[in-house]
Amino acid sequence: MREECLDAVVVGPGAGFHHLLGLRGNLTERLLCLVVTDDSEAIVVPRLQAPLYRHLRTETIVWDEHEEPTGLLCSFLRKHDVRSVGVNREFWAGFLIKMQEQAPKISFKAALSLELARMIKSPQEIEALTRASHRIDAVWSQFLKDNPVLTGKTELELRGAIGNLMQNAGFSPIAWIDIGAGENGASSLHHGSEYRLRPGDPVVCDFAGALDGWYADICRVASAGIPEQGYLDAYSVLLEAQEAAFQSIQPGVVASAPDEAARAILANAGFGDAFTHRVGHGIGLDAHEEPYLVKGSNLRLAVGMVMSAEPGIYLPGRWGMRVEDIVAQTTEGPLRLNRAPRAIAIQG
Amino acid sequence: MREECLDAVVVGPGAGFHHLLGLRGNLTERLLCLVVTDDSEAIVVPRLQAPLYRHLRTETIVWDEHEEPTGLLCSFLRKHDVRSVGVNREFWAGFLIKMQEQAPKISFKAALSLELARMIKSPQEIEALTRASHRIDAVWSQFLKDNPVLTGKTELELRGAIGNLMQNAGFSPIAWIDIGAGENGASSLHHGSEYRLRPGDPVVCDFAGALDGWYADICRVASAGIPEQGYLDAYSVLLEAQEAAFQSIQPGVVASAPDEAARAILANAGFGDAFTHRVGHGIGLDAHEEPYLVKGSNLRLAVGMVMSAEPGIYLPGRWGMRVEDIVAQTTEGPLRLNRAPRAIAIQG
Repeated sequence: MREECLDAVVVGPGAGFHHLLGLRGNLTERLLCLVVTDDSEAIVVPRLQAPLYRHLRTETIVWDEHEEPTGLLCSFLRKHDVRSVGVNREFWAGFLIKMQEQAPKISFKAALSLELARMIKSPQEIEALTRASHRIDAVWSQFLKDNPVLTGKTELELRGAIGNLMQNAGFSPIAWIDIGAGENGASSLHHGSEYRLRPGDPVVCDFAGALDGWYADICRVASAGIPEQGYLDAYSVLLEAQEAAFQSIQPGVVASAPDEAARAILANAGFGDAFTHRVGHGIGLDAHEEPYLVKGSNLRLAVGMVMSAEPGIYLPGRWGMRVEDIVAQTTEGPLRLNRAPRAIAIQG
Repeated sequence: MREECLDAVVVGPGAGFHHLLGLRGNLTERLLCLVVTDDSEAIVVPRLQAPLYRHLRTETIVWDEHEEPTGLLCSFLRKHDVRSVGVNREFWAGFLIKMQEQAPKISFKAALSLELARMIKSPQEIEALTRASHRIDAVWSQFLKDNPVLTGKTELELRGAIGNLMQNAGFSPIAWIDIGAGENGASSLHHGSEYRLRPGDPVVCDFAGALDGWYADICRVASAGIPEQGYLDAYSVLLEAQEAAFQSIQPGVVASAPDEAARAILANAGFGDAFTHRVGHGIGLDAHEEPYLVKGSNLRLAVGMVMSAEPGIYLPGRWGMRVEDIVAQTTEGPLRLNRAPRAIAIQG
């Protein structure tokens, strides 16, 4: 708060809330938030959710369904003589705008520190992330065992199979399951369709979810029989690019370096324009958080940070590929938390 | 826009985006939104998501990972001489604050019309909601068949069983599965724990999810053997209260009336303070949307609205109960979309 010149922070449900209170909170139209000033702390909570927070020793501002909770929150801020407030990025604009109308003398800013404070993970947190990563590896390996033949299956069928395995493995929530076969793989966020896999089709499978609050996220490629030679050749370049990004994750290095390392290799092989996204993102209580491994970032990597390394190649009208591991920054350099083989899983 | 004196609306991913564009959109740290002015329309979209929107004929403002998308959006607004902008309630505060800093002359407001525009459902939309409701009824009935004995099971086991059934029934996303047995039922939003059901324990099961984008939401009570007589007595009052709320859903009536009707019956039986939430919420492309059936609302119900009727009784330290149906307002009065029996499902 002091670094950002804030008198208070208001933190609605999300990773920051989870980080500060040890539980996630429901992000809905009912205002729920933690408010912290220099010398006070309170939770604004709808009456029906109050039992979930009674074990905390924090002051609670309980509101009834017909009340205006932003008004109660603004009264609290005024009572504590607050002039500048930081809010978390996911806080609903609907609430923020009401507060700006109700307390025009208070200035509202983005509380970037809420995210930055979560960047360095403790050994226990890295353990939790490792557990989640190994669990998602097991989902992938079970998926391959259960589906020796991919030819003739639809993307949505594969999506359902992975969904069931994630559910049974205890992932909650499942953040996404994106399945893109053949041409659909060229769209890096294709969620799945009724497209039926044909012989030789590669299929990009990217899925993520939280295990006890900590996110796992993986991307692998399988194929229905052997893909065309051009695909296999490009994939070996992709693996090289991912390894380069991985190796660049070193303490003190700027967060743009792994992106640049992967991009150089892909560009050199003629795939410069085909890599359309940043090479990685931090992961923890949120699926995407700081540090973002992206061109232009000056943030310095440090021991305890955990992030993805996931270059991709996307050729519209032809095919796509991406390979993603979660990587922890350790004193000995980068450490992959995923152990699933990175080679294309050639199925039937 | 005109009614709210807005020159433009900015709509990020969520039900409003889905309503206007026919697809949901990913709500993440990457700015994605539709912007509409009197005479123009554009989608601000990260490059990697652009393929998902290329079938729309709307102008696209594609941004690369190292660019500042709110800046591009503000330029668009300035170019179109926009002075007041409405945003959807779920829009991230982080984006809004950046825009307020980048375009200090533009005033940002809540675009309530985005929600109000979705209140009246078309016959096709009511069909989709009916299909989703029947599908969730089938999940409940299958759950009861699969689990003839509840005694000895944990809340999380029951949660997992319902989760699998919802997944297999095609619900995506699953919005929530709240399972509260015994005393835990007294917290209306208890998500589930390792608590193991004991003979006589009632268990409140509330779950919701989207089928092809349209939400279903149901709450029923089952029990591990026969609950205490006091519970059965209270449950019959609850059913009466729910019926009263249901019957009050009449065209032209204020949205507070169903809440008042249920509350009167519960208060009369001594449960006035034990009903801690509003009696219902609208449902559609969002799990909770207008109209909210809550004390103080002056909104008038009308044919085509679809909403929940879900009174509850919560006695801390003892037990809880809630029964919920989705109800459509028709010209002939209220119509329940759920068909699952409302009686307590007495299992082993």
